[in-house]
Amino acid sequence: MFGSEAFVGEDLSALRDRHGTDGVTLADAMLASGFSFDDVPSARAVDSVGFYVELHIEQGPRMQAHRLDTAVVTGIVGLRGYRVILHGQTNHAGTTPMNQRKDALVGASRVVLALREAALADGQITVNVGRIEIDPGGTNVVPGRVVFSIDVRAADEDKFDGLHSLVSEVIAAAAAVEALTAEIAVTHEHRPTAMDITIQTVLAQEMTAHGLAWASMASGAGHDAQVLARHVPSGMLFVPSEQGISHAPEEFTSPEAREPGVAVLTSALRRMCTRTRL
Amino acid sequence: MFGSEAFVGEDLSALRDRHGTDGVTLADAMLASGFSFDDVPSARAVDSVGFYVELHIEQGPRMQAHRLDTAVVTGIVGLRGYRVILHGQTNHAGTTPMNQRKDALVGASRVVLALREAALADGQITVNVGRIEIDPGGTNVVPGRVVFSIDVRAADEDKFDGLHSLVSEVIAAAAAVEALTAEIAVTHEHRPTAMDITIQTVLAQEMTAHGLAWASMASGAGHDAQVLARHVPSGMLFVPSEQGISHAPEEFTSPEAREPGVAVLTSALRRMCTRTRL
Repeated sequence: MFGSEAFVGEDLSALRDRHGTDGVTLADAMLASGFSFDDVPSARAVDSVGFYVELHIEQGPRMQAHRLDTAVVTGIVGLRGYRVILHGQTNHAGTTPMNQRKDALVGASRVVLALREAALADGQITVNVGRIEIDPGGTNVVPGRVVFSIDVRAADEDKFDGLHSLVSEVIAAAAAVEALTAEIAVTHEHRPTAMDITIQTVLAQEMTAHGLAWASMASGAGHDAQVLARHVPSGMLFVPSEQGISHAPEEFTSPEAREPGVAVLTSALRRMCTRTRL
Repeated sequence: MFGSEAFVGEDLSALRDRHGTDGVTLADAMLASGFSFDDVPSARAVDSVGFYVELHIEQGPRMQAHRLDTAVVTGIVGLRGYRVILHGQTNHAGTTPMNQRKDALVGASRVVLALREAALADGQITVNVGRIEIDPGGTNVVPGRVVFSIDVRAADEDKFDGLHSLVSEVIAAAAAVEALTAEIAVTHEHRPTAMDITIQTVLAQEMTAHGLAWASMASGAGHDAQVLARHVPSGMLFVPSEQGISHAPEEFTSPEAREPGVAVLTSALRRMCTRTRL
């Protein structure tokens, strides 16, 4: 685990050699499916694309809580991923006095709680520790080494940049208290991406014209639009997620709840396609 | 992982079906090595054993810190193992507001820190969380379920019994704060075991006669002597661990550091074997 993450917008030579946890490179995986990586540059069609509009479910609880039919996406949060290793001292869980342990899991637990408290206090950032591995991993062994992931997000540019100091400081403090050493690596990063203001305006006008309950909001999840936005004017609209649950089997949006979004997308595209470029 | 733990002193029918993480039962594993489980009762030889004395390395830092050559073991700590499952809600790490998460890893982190603080404050108990698994385990997914082990130990009977309330209360408090539900199961338990007082006396007299620097101490680790002590008078003596490190590749006791223990064991056994029973 902790294999390569999918990056976007890198140069092609780096993409060619990118590999999954099975060690197979992207180029080899494409070849196995009958495609040549060398054809990628000639397949580039962005110059013939006028704009990009994406309809998506919110993947969160805000729209359902406010009984919204649709939402205009103002921008997509910046996201940075970290892989952290805390090194302590593997030791005997019964004979090592509590005040002489260098327990890497205790350090990781401090990081988990400190990041959560900081995010709760801020209100405009999110943090998540979603993976953790203990080495050696015996019930009767003090954890000598813990590897874990951190996912931090913010829509605001300044807050996004400030998250790096937050992560570094929280880890340094936990390591100091528990007598550990820390390694921190950034595994992936997408900076905050604003959606095109003209497309936002068109979407908002169409939502009003359809008599919908709507609002503007930033997206806490990453989307294809953040990649396209580097090349062409891009926008997004949301329909609600039921129960506000995502990345879980319960994720669901009923056909009825999708219809207002489809109607807005259709009429907005019809308006926008009267010009080749906005 | 989290397969069966090695128990001692159970009735034979339960032992026969006990299996490892590979699913192979003890009876089948014995058969594969040319032994029949049915012969176990007739192999019982404890009635012909007069007493049991075990020489072991300390597996801890106390003897080295006090420059002791040997130590008389007064008793072996009681040990209880738990398997804890915290259930929260798997969700999207970017779109789920921080104050609406049910993050099972945050709950587990609270348990790790609360148990550590309680053990540090008490001074006579140890706790260890040595295994942890997150489900589903994605960097961008709020942990919906975490499974972890707890190892608690105390030499004192009352403190040992009190550890169960401590564990239950710490888990209940963490679950309440983070809106989780908890399952707690005891995986294995050995109650505190006192070493035979006559054997302790003989060992202490021999250490003094050999001019050694010695002390009495409880063992924080489990040992064969805790099993034998149910059947015959049993005792233990320690030699120091270098660096105080155990359950790690650095575990080491030099031949020179073992010699005083061997000398004491030899002369103590010689004295004790002048009688068939102490």
